[in-house]
Amino acid sequence: MRRFFQHKAHKAGMPPGSVVYVGEEPPEAARITVIDYGPEHYEEREVDDLSEVEDYRDTGSVTWINVDGVHEEEIVEEIGARYGLHPLLMEDVVSTGQRPKMEEYEEHLFMVLQMLVPEDGGVVRGEQVSLVLGPHWIVSFQERRGDVFDGLRHRLRSGKSRARTSGPDYLAYRLLDAIVDQYFVVLERMGDSLEDLEEQVIEEPDQETLEAVHELKGELLFVRRAAWPVRELVNALQRAESELVAEGTDPYLRDVYDHAVQVIDTTETYRDLVSGLVDLYMSGVSNRMNEVMKVLTIIATIFIPVTFVAGLYGMNFQWMPELQWRWGYPAVLVLMAVMAGAMIVYFRRRDWL
Amino acid sequence: MRRFFQHKAHKAGMPPGSVVYVGEEPPEAARITVIDYGPEHYEEREVDDLSEVEDYRDTGSVTWINVDGVHEEEIVEEIGARYGLHPLLMEDVVSTGQRPKMEEYEEHLFMVLQMLVPEDGGVVRGEQVSLVLGPHWIVSFQERRGDVFDGLRHRLRSGKSRARTSGPDYLAYRLLDAIVDQYFVVLERMGDSLEDLEEQVIEEPDQETLEAVHELKGELLFVRRAAWPVRELVNALQRAESELVAEGTDPYLRDVYDHAVQVIDTTETYRDLVSGLVDLYMSGVSNRMNEVMKVLTIIATIFIPVTFVAGLYGMNFQWMPELQWRWGYPAVLVLMAVMAGAMIVYFRRRDWL
Amino acid sequence: MRRFFQHKAHKAGMPPGSVVYVGEEPPEAARITVIDYGPEHYEEREVDDLSEVEDYRDTGSVTWINVDGVHEEEIVEEIGARYGLHPLLMEDVVSTGQRPKMEEYEEHLFMVLQMLVPEDGGVVRGEQVSLVLGPHWIVSFQERRGDVFDGLRHRLRSGKSRARTSGPDYLAYRLLDAIVDQYFVVLERMGDSLEDLEEQVIEEPDQETLEAVHELKGELLFVRRAAWPVRELVNALQRAESELVAEGTDPYLRDVYDHAVQVIDTTETYRDLVSGLVDLYMSGVSNRMNEVMKVLTIIATIFIPVTFVAGLYGMNFQWMPELQWRWGYPAVLVLMAVMAGAMIVYFRRRDWL
Amino acid sequence: MRRFFQHKAHKAGMPPGSVVYVGEEPPEAARITVIDYGPEHYEEREVDDLSEVEDYRDTGSVTWINVDGVHEEEIVEEIGARYGLHPLLMEDVVSTGQRPKMEEYEEHLFMVLQMLVPEDGGVVRGEQVSLVLGPHWIVSFQERRGDVFDGLRHRLRSGKSRARTSGPDYLAYRLLDAIVDQYFVVLERMGDSLEDLEEQVIEEPDQETLEAVHELKGELLFVRRAAWPVRELVNALQRAESELVAEGTDPYLRDVYDHAVQVIDTTETYRDLVSGLVDLYMSGVSNRMNEVMKVLTIIATIFIPVTFVAGLYGMNFQWMPELQWRWGYPAVLVLMAVMAGAMIVYFRRRDWL
Amino acid sequence: MRRFFQHKAHKAGMPPGSVVYVGEEPPEAARITVIDYGPEHYEEREVDDLSEVEDYRDTGSVTWINVDGVHEEEIVEEIGARYGLHPLLMEDVVSTGQRPKMEEYEEHLFMVLQMLVPEDGGVVRGEQVSLVLGPHWIVSFQERRGDVFDGLRHRLRSGKSRARTSGPDYLAYRLLDAIVDQYFVVLERMGDSLEDLEEQVIEEPDQETLEAVHELKGELLFVRRAAWPVRELVNALQRAESELVAEGTDPYLRDVYDHAVQVIDTTETYRDLVSGLVDLYMSGVSNRMNEVMKVLTIIATIFIPVTFVAGLYGMNFQWMPELQWRWGYPAVLVLMAVMAGAMIVYFRRRDWL
Repeated sequence: MRRFFQHKAHKAGMPPGSVVYVGEEPPEAARITVIDYGPEHYEEREVDDLSEVEDYRDTGSVTWINVDGVHEEEIVEEIGARYGLHPLLMEDVVSTGQRPKMEEYEEHLFMVLQMLVPEDGGVVRGEQVSLVLGPHWIVSFQERRGDVFDGLRHRLRSGKSRARTSGPDYLAYRLLDAIVDQYFVVLERMGDSLEDLEEQVIEEPDQETLEAVHELKGELLFVRRAAWPVRELVNALQRAESELVAEGTDPYLRDVYDHAVQVIDTTETYRDLVSGLVDLYMSGVSNRMNEVMKVLTIIATIFIPVTFVAGLYGMNFQWMPELQWRWGYPAVLVLMAVMAGAMIVYFRRRDWL
Repeated sequence: MRRFFQHKAHKAGMPPGSVVYVGEEPPEAARITVIDYGPEHYEEREVDDLSEVEDYRDTGSVTWINVDGVHEEEIVEEIGARYGLHPLLMEDVVSTGQRPKMEEYEEHLFMVLQMLVPEDGGVVRGEQVSLVLGPHWIVSFQERRGDVFDGLRHRLRSGKSRARTSGPDYLAYRLLDAIVDQYFVVLERMGDSLEDLEEQVIEEPDQETLEAVHELKGELLFVRRAAWPVRELVNALQRAESELVAEGTDPYLRDVYDHAVQVIDTTETYRDLVSGLVDLYMSGVSNRMNEVMKVLTIIATIFIPVTFVAGLYGMNFQWMPELQWRWGYPAVLVLMAVMAGAMIVYFRRRDWL
Repeated sequence: MRRFFQHKAHKAGMPPGSVVYVGEEPPEAARITVIDYGPEHYEEREVDDLSEVEDYRDTGSVTWINVDGVHEEEIVEEIGARYGLHPLLMEDVVSTGQRPKMEEYEEHLFMVLQMLVPEDGGVVRGEQVSLVLGPHWIVSFQERRGDVFDGLRHRLRSGKSRARTSGPDYLAYRLLDAIVDQYFVVLERMGDSLEDLEEQVIEEPDQETLEAVHELKGELLFVRRAAWPVRELVNALQRAESELVAEGTDPYLRDVYDHAVQVIDTTETYRDLVSGLVDLYMSGVSNRMNEVMKVLTIIATIFIPVTFVAGLYGMNFQWMPELQWRWGYPAVLVLMAVMAGAMIVYFRRRDWL
Repeated sequence: MRRFFQHKAHKAGMPPGSVVYVGEEPPEAARITVIDYGPEHYEEREVDDLSEVEDYRDTGSVTWINVDGVHEEEIVEEIGARYGLHPLLMEDVVSTGQRPKMEEYEEHLFMVLQMLVPEDGGVVRGEQVSLVLGPHWIVSFQERRGDVFDGLRHRLRSGKSRARTSGPDYLAYRLLDAIVDQYFVVLERMGDSLEDLEEQVIEEPDQETLEAVHELKGELLFVRRAAWPVRELVNALQRAESELVAEGTDPYLRDVYDHAVQVIDTTETYRDLVSGLVDLYMSGVSNRMNEVMKVLTIIATIFIPVTFVAGLYGMNFQWMPELQWRWGYPAVLVLMAVMAGAMIVYFRRRDWL
Repeated sequence: MRRFFQHKAHKAGMPPGSVVYVGEEPPEAARITVIDYGPEHYEEREVDDLSEVEDYRDTGSVTWINVDGVHEEEIVEEIGARYGLHPLLMEDVVSTGQRPKMEEYEEHLFMVLQMLVPEDGGVVRGEQVSLVLGPHWIVSFQERRGDVFDGLRHRLRSGKSRARTSGPDYLAYRLLDAIVDQYFVVLERMGDSLEDLEEQVIEEPDQETLEAVHELKGELLFVRRAAWPVRELVNALQRAESELVAEGTDPYLRDVYDHAVQVIDTTETYRDLVSGLVDLYMSGVSNRMNEVMKVLTIIATIFIPVTFVAGLYGMNFQWMPELQWRWGYPAVLVLMAVMAGAMIVYFRRRDWL
């Protein structure tokens, strides 16, 4: 999940505006869906012939064209041609791994975001979403099928959404909002991991724990990279002089902005906590070693001297008067006991026992 | 106490303006209290029928409506409807765990803060407080009963407070001030913990000490997250073009601002001290290990060589002339004493004894 | 010396403008001194009856009223009443432990600073000084007797000071300057401590060294907290629209500003050096342990194998042909010497000897 | 690759505007290439006589003069004279190791960048590229032959490039873009190294791993130093009041700006990951040591006591009744087994086995 | 070299504008040199009688008065009086250890810098240089003889310098430039030290290496403190409204600014590398210890069990059947070999051998 910055490398040396996909090929073919709606009508269908797409361009109703699969560059290029998109914009659409940003063009606004899509098996997939906001339409580009907009589509269909009576700028807000809301889901999962790791570090830290901590740190960096520029993006959107964003949408954008700030705040807090975990882990490891050492030291220092005494009287000198003494053996035993006892007392004093 | 950012996750996918409570359910039912006052009159009562609340809306006197328990969303919604509050505002009220902020709406100002409520047993509870400041009224929303405003209520009742002769903006200031003042109480407690931990780290550090340090660090992050945005909040309040905040309230807001800055400063200082504690702890652990090692080394290096000598003369070779010598045994004893003495001298020289 | 931020806690819940002292009670009663001067005259006396203080209010000459002992709140309140000071200002005066700041009121300017007073026995005491600058007067409040202004008083008395011919703004500058100059004295002392600790860490580090380093770090944080806001304070003073600060005082204020920056710079440098000391200490401890370990290892690994050989020929088997050999004993001695020699060569090669 | 800041030292004491090369001498002689093009014509050739260079100065077509080898200062000086370049500009051209920057002169814009050139054997070479943008021409200076502009030259020759119909500002953009794109290639390589090192640290960390980590960190610092100022450079270029940059070039410059930001972001992320690697490495080393210690401790503590018992009954006292007992030997064997067993049980309990 | 901030302490309590030298007394007496030049004439001489200095004040030619030795305060005061310098300015001149800064006075501009003078034996001396720029003259104050301006003097004498035809602002630029250029020389030396230390840390780290690293870190802090404010200084100079700085000098100042930024950049990079060195050192020490431990463990764990076996058959029990067996001894030898072999195999498996 950590890798959304290197793709550019494959294109070094190409002219600007080259519409060349740089990501991993998804398993399915591209799909184009059109949703056209107004207060009274709602139409949703898949489109095969790209010329149909153009029909929606100048209708009065709001149209949302969604493309799943930017790896089919010719589709992106054709839609770009039909909707008058700038070559650099189209290059950005297929250059997945962009830093989130907002750009004003004369006729439309362009936004790039990183969507985090939850998948089966607890994995999270990072995917670039590009949004082009025009006068009556939105074109959105995704890397593959499956996204975080199903709730929104459902509301649109049911007719209860405010979106049905609003313009495309409100729809754009809803798309941004859905993407940012998903960050909270991912963060919550990370929060749970963090707690698990905290417990693990305290109870039985091993090298794998630290590797998991390192992994989590990498993922936090990833979320932060995705969320950080969203603030600027929304800010730029609010300040845009374009008439494409109605004034009434402002409180909604402010809301997305707040959410983005909250996501960033949380990642920062998590990062602080994670770095505290590393300290805690390191100290736990030291502590364990310390205890191991203590046991070794106690055993060794108690037995080493008495073993020496035993060795002493195991010597074979002919003239060793103690060996003939009647009480020699008991006396030595007592001596050994005293030596061991003295050691134990010493350890008690130093608080090692 | 550390968790005020994840709740959003539960709502991902819902339309904006959904008034859905996301926190933990409190044990009691919601309660609505109305305090209505002027220089000459003071009225305080609990309200059951929400229609009564509306009666206070357009009176000339200052009204403070306090709702304990935002988990009963319908109450929030009805008050919102009667006082003309924006849907996004109401969503924020019930989405506990918000980042503190101030938002200007046309007819009212909206503030969210995190209140730290001291509870029995030394525990501190974090709770979201939302304030809506209207022309003649303030509506405040809390998560549950029990807050930090009792001193203020007491002053209002007694009639001695400046608040009785001031507008609702002064009341809002007093509410903000009460919340921020409480931060100092929490910080003082943390300062005490910090001192205790400092002593513990120096005198007898163990793994639990470090866990407590880690815990304290997490709590500092929590207070910082609560206090940091209060600066912006008050700043925004001062700069607000709204006529809801009279100019005479400015020095008071500046005061809250100063307090917030002081809280932030203190958390930063505490964080620096806490990270110093970790170093101190680590070094203490190393030091202890060092001493343990030294004892082991001294005992072992003194006895290992002499034990070897003893073993040497314990060998059973037939032809070992020393064994027959008259002074063999005493000579060996002397040899051993010399060896041990040389070691001790060596250790003394290296300053290990 | 480290504690100037918690006092606020005791007042949580009180109404704003409560003039309640929050610090430690000093041993002596409050004292009020008045110095009134002009180019030609100089008067200095202690005042008991507060009504006398008011006499100086509207004279043309410059008056400096100094109050030692803000714990007697009624004195502060009465002076405040006579000089028309704002309730919040008076609250700040008695709430010791304020963050340094400058506040403009309509008729006067208010400044709070933290003075570091050297005391007997090398201890430094932190104390809050509040200055109110009016049209012809300055009122200064201190926590207890003893301050850093004696040099200034001496110059005033002698008549040689520029202050005698200048307004109260110049006097305010001199007071600020005296406080900031004192920081350099404290820093110099810390610099000496730092050097001592550096030497100690290199020559014979023990746990107490690190505790001293930790202590020093805390004190640096303290000085930084005192000095950091002074920059803003002076800046605000320079930008103040008030006519209380004449334009000719600007270069002097710039001078104080420069000094404050220099103090901050120095604390930052010291902090960097202190954190380097911790590294150095940690490594010194590791190093010592390393040497201890090396000695243990060398002794043990040389003697353990030869001791085994001795044990081998100490066995009592009936059929052990070596024991009967004429040269068995010398051969074993040679073997042991070879083994020990091989070990020593190995250690030499690994550079451990 | 790490060294692009010291060269200035050699020139200390020389007057400003001294055109003295400070880098390492490249192996080949300088080479001057001229490319002159318009929508319809394209000319590319090497130039020996510098007077020919001036011919291109005032033609209407776009001219790109490229100098490989700024160590031949007289060439730089002559071109500077013929194209009216400022002495300080020329000094910067030959003072390789400059910080990237943009400077406006009256008649031209001057840019310095650090190009990273991939070479055989996986090595990357840092090289200073200086660009001077005039009304109809660009002069570029490089340290030696070989650069990252071959793709661009190819496009120019083929006639398909947008550059053929654009002005010299677009060419400047293309040059900037080629340099920045190359950073992605270098970063990708570093990303691969990072992953390799991550694996190594987890699987078998040794001192060389850490040295490689340190090396990587140094290289990241190098790329960051090269990329960081490019943001300002492009920013300054966009804000330049000069008419040399047409308005239509703005989206392209914004694109370079975005790329530079992305490079910086990535280096920051990598640095965070690298510092995590150091923690991981340190902990891995501790862990290994811990395990080694455990084995030692277990073996030693099991055998030391029983060896003592064996020594005890190896003593040669005449009066040791146990030695005569019929079951003495088996009893001692049992005793030893019990002692060893007890130790093992103890270790099991402490989770060491 | 590290100490340029404490001198202020000696003056705490003195009135502002006290011209009291605070540094170390240099060995020689003060010296005053005057250089007066124009396009056509050049005069350079030492001055003993200060009244002569005033003669140059109002001539049309450019005059550079240089004072070596600010410890003779009366000279500074007299020059100050003759050239109308502000008392605070003169105080700064003799208070060595100032933070670099630029100050505008009505009739002149004042600059303070820290010059790093290379001395015999590889030592670098820090020295304060103060520059006062007037309408036709520059007065420069240094702490002692010997500076970095010899190259400049030589150029002036030779008549080839641009300075001869320019005003005193250009001369001021040249002085600034000479000081900043010297920083590069010092940095280069530090870069060499850094490389040496890097090698040492990797090859044979000992405690002295770390002390050298710590020393280097302190010196980097020193250079940073000297260079950091130079940026502001030059900036302030460029923005100064004074007519003393001609517009044509701007590109030259920009050049100094760039150099200062480059110096700061380099110190930052070096600091990052230095802190990496500490990690590397720490890990190297751990690694060595690890290896020592391994050897000890291997030797001990191989011999401890077999030594026990030897001890076992050294016991003197009467009834020990093994001792009578014909093959007892060889069997025990085989047993011991098997035990040692098993251990070795175990170590091989764990990759310790």
